Amino acid sequence: MSVRVDLNISLDGFATTTDGTPDDPIGQDWMRLVAAYAATRTFRERVFGDTSGEGTTGVDDRYAAAYFEGIAAEVMGAGMFGLHTFPDDPDWRGWWGEEPPFRVPVFVLTHTPRADIEFENGTVFHFLSATPQEALDRATEAANGGDVRIGGGASTVREFLRAGLVDRLHVGITPMILGDGIRLWDDLRGLELTHDPHTETAESGVVHVTFSRRAT
Amino acid sequence: MSVRVDLNISLDGFATTTDGTPDDPIGQDWMRLVAAYAATRTFRERVFGDTSGEGTTGVDDRYAAAYFEGIAAEVMGAGMFGLHTFPDDPDWRGWWGEEPPFRVPVFVLTHTPRADIEFENGTVFHFLSATPQEALDRATEAANGGDVRIGGGASTVREFLRAGLVDRLHVGITPMILGDGIRLWDDLRGLELTHDPHTETAESGVVHVTFSRRAT
Repeated sequence: MSVRVDLNISLDGFATTTDGTPDDPIGQDWMRLVAAYAATRTFRERVFGDTSGEGTTGVDDRYAAAYFEGIAAEVMGAGMFGLHTFPDDPDWRGWWGEEPPFRVPVFVLTHTPRADIEFENGTVFHFLSATPQEALDRATEAANGGDVRIGGGASTVREFLRAGLVDRLHVGITPMILGDGIRLWDDLRGLELTHDPHTETAESGVVHVTFSRRAT
Repeated sequence: MSVRVDLNISLDGFATTTDGTPDDPIGQDWMRLVAAYAATRTFRERVFGDTSGEGTTGVDDRYAAAYFEGIAAEVMGAGMFGLHTFPDDPDWRGWWGEEPPFRVPVFVLTHTPRADIEFENGTVFHFLSATPQEALDRATEAANGGDVRIGGGASTVREFLRAGLVDRLHVGITPMILGDGIRLWDDLRGLELTHDPHTETAESGVVHVTFSRRAT
């Protein structure tokens, strides 16, 4: 059992973008940040339900496939579920529609828990007010021997990294400079001393960096 | 004629380290940051005068060789020459000894110019109080058709980048998290829109990213 993180970040280390507007809430920077990932065959099939077999099949797709492999539970921050955007709607079911790509129990960290939300594809959102360790314990139990992902956002991931709870951190670094947002790397000095880095470049230009906890 | 920059930075974007002490002024972090570069055959020969032919000869060495290729003049900040460390000694000749690795005219930006310093290997340090554009004009003239390097430090490089004066920026990114220092990427949002990025991974794990000005 392993605790894993996968994030897309910019070359200057930002995991979020800041150019969203009411008319374009996601923003063009985000589309550029995740473009190579979204172009993979795995992402198109798994997230868009596109079974045509189209999409890239190189290094980026290998990481995209690994992203979904072996994950049996997920933990995410309230913002990633959307509670910061829609905090007052108790009936909101998240922004993934009726086919959330998780298909496993998802534990959403929030100070104001609400009732579970279940989907037919196996995704179940549980809401809990808990420390990172407590949330991980719940997710580990639910994963029943499978891997647990800390899904995001960046601040949540950083909390789990700082608490030493992450076994494998994979980032896809898009060679663009965002200049502002939430920095993934803050307060993580010396991560390479506890986690061995591995680097690899994809055909798209995206740099994949994986930090894996050293055997003790 | 091209204006070029080469820097070693950490994964979190720092071009300087902060763990130096009076007993170890360079610090261990710096040694780790530049370890792969210092291990190349080109660096050993060019900077250490090691003609044994030892050293790595892979991707890192290809970039090290390109580093010295075609440069006919250099511009650097006062700190890189050492004026911040030895500001009161008018006889100080820099910290590269009697064989500075430049072998070309070097223009040192300082608010308190001093007399030129010449070395037998062709290195000549000129000291001037000037804007980035003015310094570049002087260096371009001295380069006589050859390339000009903006050598550093990181703040000086950033000034030239922000002024749009750099044609090619190459960074060797060592997969380590420094957590503090001078950030290269600050205030460079959208660099990838004016300069095309290219990424490549070395055997050492260092990621080489090159931004080249787009043809207009």
